[in-house]
Amino acid sequence: MNQIIQSLFDRRSVRAYTREPVAPEVKELLLECAFQAPTAGCQQLYTILDIVDQGEKEELAELCDHQPFIAQAPVVLIFCADCQRWLDVYGEAGTEARKPGPGDLLLAMADAVIAAQNVVVAAESLGLGSCYIGDILEHQERVRELLGLPDFAVPAAMLVLGWPTQQQKERPKPQRTDGKYLVCRDRYRRLTGPELRDMLGGRTGQKSFDDWVDAFCRRKYQSDFSREMSRSAAKWLEPFQNEKL
Amino acid sequence: MNQIIQSLFDRRSVRAYTREPVAPEVKELLLECAFQAPTAGCQQLYTILDIVDQGEKEELAELCDHQPFIAQAPVVLIFCADCQRWLDVYGEAGTEARKPGPGDLLLAMADAVIAAQNVVVAAESLGLGSCYIGDILEHQERVRELLGLPDFAVPAAMLVLGWPTQQQKERPKPQRTDGKYLVCRDRYRRLTGPELRDMLGGRTGQKSFDDWVDAFCRRKYQSDFSREMSRSAAKWLEPFQNEKL
Repeated sequence: MNQIIQSLFDRRSVRAYTREPVAPEVKELLLECAFQAPTAGCQQLYTILDIVDQGEKEELAELCDHQPFIAQAPVVLIFCADCQRWLDVYGEAGTEARKPGPGDLLLAMADAVIAAQNVVVAAESLGLGSCYIGDILEHQERVRELLGLPDFAVPAAMLVLGWPTQQQKERPKPQRTDGKYLVCRDRYRRLTGPELRDMLGGRTGQKSFDDWVDAFCRRKYQSDFSREMSRSAAKWLEPFQNEKL
Repeated sequence: MNQIIQSLFDRRSVRAYTREPVAPEVKELLLECAFQAPTAGCQQLYTILDIVDQGEKEELAELCDHQPFIAQAPVVLIFCADCQRWLDVYGEAGTEARKPGPGDLLLAMADAVIAAQNVVVAAESLGLGSCYIGDILEHQERVRELLGLPDFAVPAAMLVLGWPTQQQKERPKPQRTDGKYLVCRDRYRRLTGPELRDMLGGRTGQKSFDDWVDAFCRRKYQSDFSREMSRSAAKWLEPFQNEKL
């Protein structure tokens, strides 16, 4: 295992940071790593919002399911899938261009997330902790206003970064699922009941499978924030829909 | 610049491969790197399809905008955003669970793409070339059937990998856009006309901005494959919509 692969294995989310700031040149380097990521047709279908305003960080911490550590992070980056910039390019050149559709959005989301993951990898190599905040998909109306987003830019991923506290450095990485349940050869295969039970066997602790899953489902999937995420995601998708292509 | 960051800078897409196979243990290691990626609530909301059947590779090469090099790649991986597996877990446990919504899909797409990018980084560290194929979003009806996907699993990214030919190793990496046009502080800002022109100044060669953009737009954004991608993406989204959350 080489140093790069070791680093991918070592990386885990960090949600508590020391007071040490992240130097501007470090942030610059992280952003350069984002730009170097693979991108569809070299279009770089993203805009990265670098959130430095403390009040804005605090509101984002609230909007993203009340997670105060977000406001404490020295670096807060929002990777927006951006179909607006190229549309503006086409407009500037006087070229006829259709309205972006759902395919354009999904392609741009991939571009944005690929770029974000390069930042995660680069941060880890510098000893800098990071954490994705999926909740940035929630509260479309207020987030859109707060970030000043046009119709065709959508937050695909939020990343918060900072130097990990000692306690965070020592935190064990959560165990991943056995790969045999995550990979299929040639065609998707739904897992059988016994496989699903075996897959989660290591996680349920003292609880039965049924009880653990029920509690997990209530806490995560059936939660208010999860329902809000889907309500809000539908709003993000709206401008990209209902167009004859 | 450390070795890991250097590797992120060095990486570029590789679309021509030598005949040398990729050893099974190398593929295993790449997949392990995918599993080690950050994932929402440690749910690993993806299933990776490892396409080994040559006939299937050839059909995918056709379906993905007729790119024969896909069928020549020793490794073809499709990263599916998977909301089905956890739904099946909930079903197995007898827990009441809502139908997945658009928020669940977008979160799972991020999980899948994050995992894919870890594979790209790991591959580069081994000297193995990779290329994303965004076109996997197209032709929903046939792709869904070919891959045997259930309603709540959607291809988020396709990655093809192999050992680069000498010519590919020597190919220069396409220049990225100046970061000042890709990053905004605190709020999104649409670029002005002169900024948009300046942003693409290095790319247009002998052509005027207007002519270059017009040709680019026709070739990419207004193309049949791009329209097909949005038509098809709407089909992928369909099962996740129209549900009271």
